[in-house]
Amino acid sequence: MKLTILGCHSATPRENAHTTSQLLEVQGDLFLIDCGEGTQMQLRKSGIKFARIKHVFISHLHGDHFYGLIGLISTFRLLGRTAPLHIYGPKGIKEIIVLQLKLAKSWTDYDLYFHELDGQESELIFENEKLTVHTLPLDHRVYTNGFLFQEKPGLRQLNRKVADSYQIPSCDFENIKAGNDYVLEDGTVVSNSELTQDPKPTKSYAFCSDTAYKEALVPLIQGVDLLYHEATFLEKHQDLAATTKHSTVIQAATIAQKAQVKQLIVGHYSSRYKDHQMFLEEAYPIFEATHLAADLKSFEI
Amino acid sequence: MKLTILGCHSATPRENAHTTSQLLEVQGDLFLIDCGEGTQMQLRKSGIKFARIKHVFISHLHGDHFYGLIGLISTFRLLGRTAPLHIYGPKGIKEIIVLQLKLAKSWTDYDLYFHELDGQESELIFENEKLTVHTLPLDHRVYTNGFLFQEKPGLRQLNRKVADSYQIPSCDFENIKAGNDYVLEDGTVVSNSELTQDPKPTKSYAFCSDTAYKEALVPLIQGVDLLYHEATFLEKHQDLAATTKHSTVIQAATIAQKAQVKQLIVGHYSSRYKDHQMFLEEAYPIFEATHLAADLKSFEI
Repeated sequence: MKLTILGCHSATPRENAHTTSQLLEVQGDLFLIDCGEGTQMQLRKSGIKFARIKHVFISHLHGDHFYGLIGLISTFRLLGRTAPLHIYGPKGIKEIIVLQLKLAKSWTDYDLYFHELDGQESELIFENEKLTVHTLPLDHRVYTNGFLFQEKPGLRQLNRKVADSYQIPSCDFENIKAGNDYVLEDGTVVSNSELTQDPKPTKSYAFCSDTAYKEALVPLIQGVDLLYHEATFLEKHQDLAATTKHSTVIQAATIAQKAQVKQLIVGHYSSRYKDHQMFLEEAYPIFEATHLAADLKSFEI
Repeated sequence: MKLTILGCHSATPRENAHTTSQLLEVQGDLFLIDCGEGTQMQLRKSGIKFARIKHVFISHLHGDHFYGLIGLISTFRLLGRTAPLHIYGPKGIKEIIVLQLKLAKSWTDYDLYFHELDGQESELIFENEKLTVHTLPLDHRVYTNGFLFQEKPGLRQLNRKVADSYQIPSCDFENIKAGNDYVLEDGTVVSNSELTQDPKPTKSYAFCSDTAYKEALVPLIQGVDLLYHEATFLEKHQDLAATTKHSTVIQAATIAQKAQVKQLIVGHYSSRYKDHQMFLEEAYPIFEATHLAADLKSFEI
């Protein structure tokens, strides 16, 4: 898994402060998470072949998280896209996009699927052979979800030396990697544990923006490899965090610490802070493995 | 009048190629014309105090001309705007903006007025003490208007030396500048033509994007000081211009020449052209006073 931050600032896009959007690469598949105004320009800057994006997840319908979506959909058409595109987001997102296409007498030459969300509990919303995506219901001023990306366990890893010592033909390898024992011609059973090792460890990523402090998240994201949690404010502005239903960096770090995640990235900074070093200084005493999000910065998971 | 090009490229915004938006300053008032995605970032780059914008004119509902509008409206709220904002654009624009505000449970703390257009003839849509704005119906794939900005004639210019020679008190100056003669105490009439000169010449600006070649524009923009006319294609792509209802640069120059405008700016370049010098070379034989639009370039009128 590789995460690229396209924008990590709140409210309004500025020249060097783009609003929320992230690109998650999982075993070659690209997933876009949120899409603030200008995201398509950030995608171009990132150098990623963004036509490969097939799934877009929108947390909520505040502008700094989705005003760039209609432009991206239009650009995909202009670039000659034919692959289907799936949009996951709050109820209402389809009406907005379709109305804009209709009034522009525009269309897409590719299939555009909307998966509208209105559940109040975490639910599975996407699954393929490599991973699952679950919603993470958040606590914000409008209906908002975070998203949990979890790789599925792969096949067991064949110990080729041992397999060859039993002269096992390669056509049986997939069966063994799936966990089965092997029976030799003389009837001897070679146990799977002798032939294989555990699969490579799976990775997981949780995206949580925007939200007030919500302890109910803790069991849902327990032990994830990487957590992005919004941290709009420093402690001195905790009153603002409360009234706007955002988090302070201390609250973000507390969630990370309670959920025993491996790494934490914070972002969605209020524009009142010119320097973000204080976010680290407030987080460190609670959760040391904290990193600052920055536009076009990548993280390997 | 001063025109600042914020973006002048067609279709999709790229890092150094912003879609259509222009800022026209008339005697201290700011008018925004079209608002492609990222316009608010271009406004910040321009250094102009864009909170002063009170009137926004949208030519048509294709994304490269208005996807930045909802973001600008939201940003005005976040910046604490209280002054009213007036939006002029095709029927449907209100529905799009209001739907997005509603689904975001958002609002504006300032009054937001929509003036929806659906006329087929040129009409007066705005007037204050300094200028008038008329629509310029264009020929595009969706309902589209250009806009004609015309300064009103100002007051006559007082010849202060002559006024002083008659010992005319300054409280009577406004009356004289309005065109009236002056009667001295002994009953002598001093004619206005002796006391004043003609008002400063008025200026006019016509914005025409997007459109196929439309000769009916010529009488509407006759003699304007500055014409912006879209020129999406070079002559070798005239077939594309025809099918997409855009203009070639030769067509733009022909309109300028027939309307005897003083200066022409061309823009809305197709992304297929990396270098725009050829646009000038094709325009010059027809209309020499042609200039290339460029992002963040300003023109004094």
